[in-house]
Amino acid sequence: MRAAVLKKTGEPLHVIDWPAPAEELGRSIIQVKYAGLNHRDLWITKGQYAGIQTPIILGSDLAGTCRGVDVIANPAFNWGDDPRFQSKSFEILGLPSMGTLAEQVFVPDSAVFPVPGHLSAEQAASLPLAGLTAYRALMKRAQAWKEDKVLITGIGGGVALFALQFALALGMEVYVSSSSQNKIERAVKMGARAGVNYLSPDWEKELLNQSSGIDVVIDGASGSDFSKLVKVCNPGARIVIYGGTRGAIQNLSPQPVFWKQLSILGSTMGSPSDFAEMVDLVNQYKIIPIVDSVFELDNVNHAFSRMESGLQFGKIIVKVHN
Amino acid sequence: MRAAVLKKTGEPLHVIDWPAPAEELGRSIIQVKYAGLNHRDLWITKGQYAGIQTPIILGSDLAGTCRGVDVIANPAFNWGDDPRFQSKSFEILGLPSMGTLAEQVFVPDSAVFPVPGHLSAEQAASLPLAGLTAYRALMKRAQAWKEDKVLITGIGGGVALFALQFALALGMEVYVSSSSQNKIERAVKMGARAGVNYLSPDWEKELLNQSSGIDVVIDGASGSDFSKLVKVCNPGARIVIYGGTRGAIQNLSPQPVFWKQLSILGSTMGSPSDFAEMVDLVNQYKIIPIVDSVFELDNVNHAFSRMESGLQFGKIIVKVHN
Repeated sequence: MRAAVLKKTGEPLHVIDWPAPAEELGRSIIQVKYAGLNHRDLWITKGQYAGIQTPIILGSDLAGTCRGVDVIANPAFNWGDDPRFQSKSFEILGLPSMGTLAEQVFVPDSAVFPVPGHLSAEQAASLPLAGLTAYRALMKRAQAWKEDKVLITGIGGGVALFALQFALALGMEVYVSSSSQNKIERAVKMGARAGVNYLSPDWEKELLNQSSGIDVVIDGASGSDFSKLVKVCNPGARIVIYGGTRGAIQNLSPQPVFWKQLSILGSTMGSPSDFAEMVDLVNQYKIIPIVDSVFELDNVNHAFSRMESGLQFGKIIVKVHN
Repeated sequence: MRAAVLKKTGEPLHVIDWPAPAEELGRSIIQVKYAGLNHRDLWITKGQYAGIQTPIILGSDLAGTCRGVDVIANPAFNWGDDPRFQSKSFEILGLPSMGTLAEQVFVPDSAVFPVPGHLSAEQAASLPLAGLTAYRALMKRAQAWKEDKVLITGIGGGVALFALQFALALGMEVYVSSSSQNKIERAVKMGARAGVNYLSPDWEKELLNQSSGIDVVIDGASGSDFSKLVKVCNPGARIVIYGGTRGAIQNLSPQPVFWKQLSILGSTMGSPSDFAEMVDLVNQYKIIPIVDSVFELDNVNHAFSRMESGLQFGKIIVKVHN
């Protein structure tokens, strides 16, 4: 089969022939039509991820067919028994197991879900990892509900956009941040109340003026601006951290954290029931994932460049096979 | 009546005659026997607290009598309707209302509770603010239970000692930290499994060796060592911040926070039901607060010096009246 293989970190992917996976009890082989990229894949190509083994076929997201049925797959394997956190044997499709940038991929039977009927294959391939991460962050960790005012930072990323769509579907008032005015405007067109440019030195004051205070933050950035998130929070607010693109948190004053009874909640991926609930939500509200762009498998390295540019608004998809 | 009055921040207290409070509907006058000090009182004398008004009688903790009954008082007034956080009209006894370092003090009727029968008046005066803070932090915010391994930092402080006593009463395995070997040994005698000296550069490794990982942290320090708390945490752990004696949090890497699904939870004081539950726990398990020292009202400034020294193990109490 054809596959996009990372032979060595720091190198581009190589689209080459690779042995197809063999049948195994309890596992399903999926014929991949579209694969979706995540920042995780980019970090791995750069060697900035724990436990990298090469050669590896990257990719955690797919839409394809399995025994004649259109399917997607939950990329979070071996979550374990505790809904609060993943077990020691937890892994994510695409490292160490071979990923979705290949004509065939092998996943546990229990990971296979039918494609929501209202979605194209490109849209379906956008959903799994980012949708799961957003769902757990917003619904399980923050326990957001319709009376909450929600801030989603870095709008345009996959998780951020799903968090926006889920929050809007459930009737929440949503605010966004981005370094791109264009992305803020697109989010507002989707239904966000307003947005702020985080390059502006006083963005937190602007956001307080817009919102009169935030109850839930969904943040994938961390970094030195994290303490400003605390400033915009109402008493009892929950800030969920699902990523750290802007590095370590600095100068976080404890007084507003305890005085406002804030909760700063780490979240990554999700349990099998989180995934099933997320798919139910997408079906119930007919949520359509935002596809930024679709690349041919031969142009997979252009897809990675697009991700690295930070210009995308929505998911970057790779067409693996018709 | 006699009272210890802060006339101006930066000055010692003055023990002087002061007008007794007058009767008012919905409020009870308590004849104070003993008052307890808290760090809050020390910060106020230094001007390091929001909303200071002088002259003010400091003190949030008391044991005394009210209509012939031995009583204590919940020092957290006007919590409001939401159990998750205090309302805008929330206040703490001893600023802006006149506090307990006086022969009489005025509190809302609903704040008055009978003294637990197994406690002396000195012990009872140790309980309210620190017991409430510890109870909410451990039980409501961390939702600790008997299978949890608990780390309590800065053992010797009032909140830390109540957290230790509550956790031990409920069957948890408790570890402590301090800069004093003597305090660690006293905590171990009380039932802590072990402790580490946080001045040691590798205390987090030592603690991991002792405990194999921590599920709940009760921390009143914050500061640059906060990121080490993250290192000792098991997946799903909860770190409660109730104070910031060591300043802002620095260099907090987001990756272990989200990967381990940690919860960093601010907590201060507690609701009326938190207070009632705390008193129930003290009654049920016959918990006896640790009294560090008792000072005469005339020596109230020595009591403040004792607090500032950091040498205390338990509550510093002032005898106001027999």
